[in-house]
Amino acid sequence: MEEEKMLTASDVMELMDARRLSELRARADEMRVEDIAELFRELPEEYHPRFFRLLHKEKAAEVFTEMDADFRESLIASFTDAELKNILDEMFLDDTVDLVEEMPANVVQRIIANSTPEDRRAINELLKYPPDSAGGIMTTEFVRLNKTLTVAEALAVIRRVGVNKETIYTCYVTDNMRHLLGIVSAKDLLLSAEDDCIGDLMEENIISIGTLEDQETAAQLMTKYSLMALPVVDTEHRLVGIITVDDAIDIIHEETEEDFSKMAAITPTETPYLRTPVARIWLNRIPWLALLMVSATFTGWIISSFETALSQVVVLTAFIPMLMDTGGNSGSQSSVTVIRNLSLGEVTLSDWWRVAWKEIRVAIMCGISLGALAFGKVMLVDHLIMHNPAVTISVAWTVAATLCLTILIAKLIGCLLPILARRIGLDPAVVASPFITTIVDAISLLVYFTIAKTVIPGLA
Amino acid sequence: MEEEKMLTASDVMELMDARRLSELRARADEMRVEDIAELFRELPEEYHPRFFRLLHKEKAAEVFTEMDADFRESLIASFTDAELKNILDEMFLDDTVDLVEEMPANVVQRIIANSTPEDRRAINELLKYPPDSAGGIMTTEFVRLNKTLTVAEALAVIRRVGVNKETIYTCYVTDNMRHLLGIVSAKDLLLSAEDDCIGDLMEENIISIGTLEDQETAAQLMTKYSLMALPVVDTEHRLVGIITVDDAIDIIHEETEEDFSKMAAITPTETPYLRTPVARIWLNRIPWLALLMVSATFTGWIISSFETALSQVVVLTAFIPMLMDTGGNSGSQSSVTVIRNLSLGEVTLSDWWRVAWKEIRVAIMCGISLGALAFGKVMLVDHLIMHNPAVTISVAWTVAATLCLTILIAKLIGCLLPILARRIGLDPAVVASPFITTIVDAISLLVYFTIAKTVIPGLA
Repeated sequence: MEEEKMLTASDVMELMDARRLSELRARADEMRVEDIAELFRELPEEYHPRFFRLLHKEKAAEVFTEMDADFRESLIASFTDAELKNILDEMFLDDTVDLVEEMPANVVQRIIANSTPEDRRAINELLKYPPDSAGGIMTTEFVRLNKTLTVAEALAVIRRVGVNKETIYTCYVTDNMRHLLGIVSAKDLLLSAEDDCIGDLMEENIISIGTLEDQETAAQLMTKYSLMALPVVDTEHRLVGIITVDDAIDIIHEETEEDFSKMAAITPTETPYLRTPVARIWLNRIPWLALLMVSATFTGWIISSFETALSQVVVLTAFIPMLMDTGGNSGSQSSVTVIRNLSLGEVTLSDWWRVAWKEIRVAIMCGISLGALAFGKVMLVDHLIMHNPAVTISVAWTVAATLCLTILIAKLIGCLLPILARRIGLDPAVVASPFITTIVDAISLLVYFTIAKTVIPGLA
Repeated sequence: MEEEKMLTASDVMELMDARRLSELRARADEMRVEDIAELFRELPEEYHPRFFRLLHKEKAAEVFTEMDADFRESLIASFTDAELKNILDEMFLDDTVDLVEEMPANVVQRIIANSTPEDRRAINELLKYPPDSAGGIMTTEFVRLNKTLTVAEALAVIRRVGVNKETIYTCYVTDNMRHLLGIVSAKDLLLSAEDDCIGDLMEENIISIGTLEDQETAAQLMTKYSLMALPVVDTEHRLVGIITVDDAIDIIHEETEEDFSKMAAITPTETPYLRTPVARIWLNRIPWLALLMVSATFTGWIISSFETALSQVVVLTAFIPMLMDTGGNSGSQSSVTVIRNLSLGEVTLSDWWRVAWKEIRVAIMCGISLGALAFGKVMLVDHLIMHNPAVTISVAWTVAATLCLTILIAKLIGCLLPILARRIGLDPAVVASPFITTIVDAISLLVYFTIAKTVIPGLA
């Protein structure tokens, strides 16, 4: 239904060029801020300031919050100080902090200069926390209730202060020293008698998080306990802010995409793919490709050192891709499983032996079944059907035994390397598939040639 | 703070064996349902029914909802009909529907038999939708307001019916035919005058989703527009249910883990890794490993058909792993990027040319830089430092040119194959890294030997 009303970038340009500005404003007013922000992505940048000025004040601030960093920077450059002040007044504090973190120093100075003294103090306070910590992403705009209030008084407080708060659905009960005592939900307030006391109604057994904890931990807690908001406390258990569920969803997305990138050997970036310049994409990918390529040359040396054997039984080369790929795939299966389980907190470092023991058994089952399959395939297809005289039963044994052993080693490395990485403080996702493939390649070739020399008669 | 009070599985067994049941009940009462559900995972199954019976009625139902399917099935087997009825009465309808979908037929019959006639009708209604559709995951427990109500009347409705609803923070305004007209938030109600009319307050420009749409679409809409709840409508735009934000987070997690599994060539499963039996893990992994292994034998055939060339210049073999790995990694980078962007809706099918054009340019830059690096490395290390007489300048040219071309082909296949998969209705995630690696392996070897024959003098 709404789709028909949706403005496209060419509509905006047409209406603007035709100076039908009030029509444009009316139609933009019916759109959601997220869709308007998307419209800016399609719109040539020279139209940005004029189109932005057409938006209503509150809507403009919300659209601004949704926009990409580079557009925001050029928009700010086009703002007068008064315009900038207007936008900043309408924005939530945590969004302003995000903005300050993204902008270059000269823009930050303008932002700080145009904030109210109170906001300035709060922004500086929030900037003290690392950007990826609970303190760095929290907002300070929440409803605080004193435990001595009645329900009617609490509802009056919400009516008075609630309009500027990110959420009024969870209210935080504190003592006079701002220590967090408990929470009451708006649902509890609405469903209770007017003269009930907040202190009696509040839930005291609550989940909170320290300011310096990782944002990922915050998102995990909110997911596990289905929380709409998570209170953030300082070391003295004083309430300093809250994290809302929409921030949690953003964190989940951000951390997931980071993991996907790292696992594919790409430096993570927050810019949308279609808008990232080619040179930037190249820069995010090339160091990993180069590193992996150089590592792979070690595998080449292993082959070189068995050159004599290879020239005696050239058919051995034909099985190299299959052995390398299967080893790589087996290792990836284990590493991706373990990396995700570590990321989600389902597996901890102390589980390393449970994980290894599970993977060893899976690896033995996979090794035996694939080894048998490969042996059968080599004997049936290459030996019997295709009558390749070089493919002897010794070659088939060599291939099957190598597969079996490679899978075992690949799965062990695949499950233990991410745990080891976490143990020494690295992100497990960086030792994902590509690196494990490179290591497993080298090992599988070593195993292959060693077995070949033992099994195949006359091989030097 | 809460950690100290937390019961461990051995605490539960100890207290139960010592018959200190009221102490156990009191301590369990202070724990969150999610943590109690986790406790059941650690606890031997013979303790389950007795421990479960100790929990307070409402808590028991919530714990039950959080538990894994196999434990729920064995618990239900231990319940009397009266106990089952009690649990079902306390559960939200969408959770009951999930339960019905998970349980075997005989258990489902008991569940249906012990539901109220009203719930039975609603359950049957919800079961008509596919489990992964918006209709399949929605709940029918929401607050419906008539547009003629005043704010005071609406608040009275919420106080009367709200206690059993999943959320009261978004209320849905409908006409008498249940057509969805708009929404009002509890925040709007609390911040408005008592005699304002709901019809005037409501937001009419709202996002909704059809019952048969994919749950992933629902989660994407809720993420994009930061919605706490999403109304689900039938084909006549009548409101039939809502999806709440905690369900959206679960969907995001479920779909992400599915993508991670598929990309690592593993059949997705919802059972936690540490609790999945070894045979099940094997079964989820072996078909893909086998399929990929058999596909890799084609690569072997390519090598076999160039056997004469290889036996003439054995050193060519040494570069095979490096060429295959770099091709595979280049392809993975592109495929993972495109698959995630398709999954998140950031790239659509119509963007195929924009994606391909971007990847072509990135590929040319990567190809030239890695080709140059490889040429330099081969000439410097292998030729000059290690004095390998077999590594001639022709070999170096062959390796560099193959790299360049392989990267281009790998990135093109990597970006276009997922789009093609989506186009023909497949999940893009299944054509991820492992499959692309297998295809790229074969192509890179073909390129390698073709170039070698052209560049290296005297190669047959």
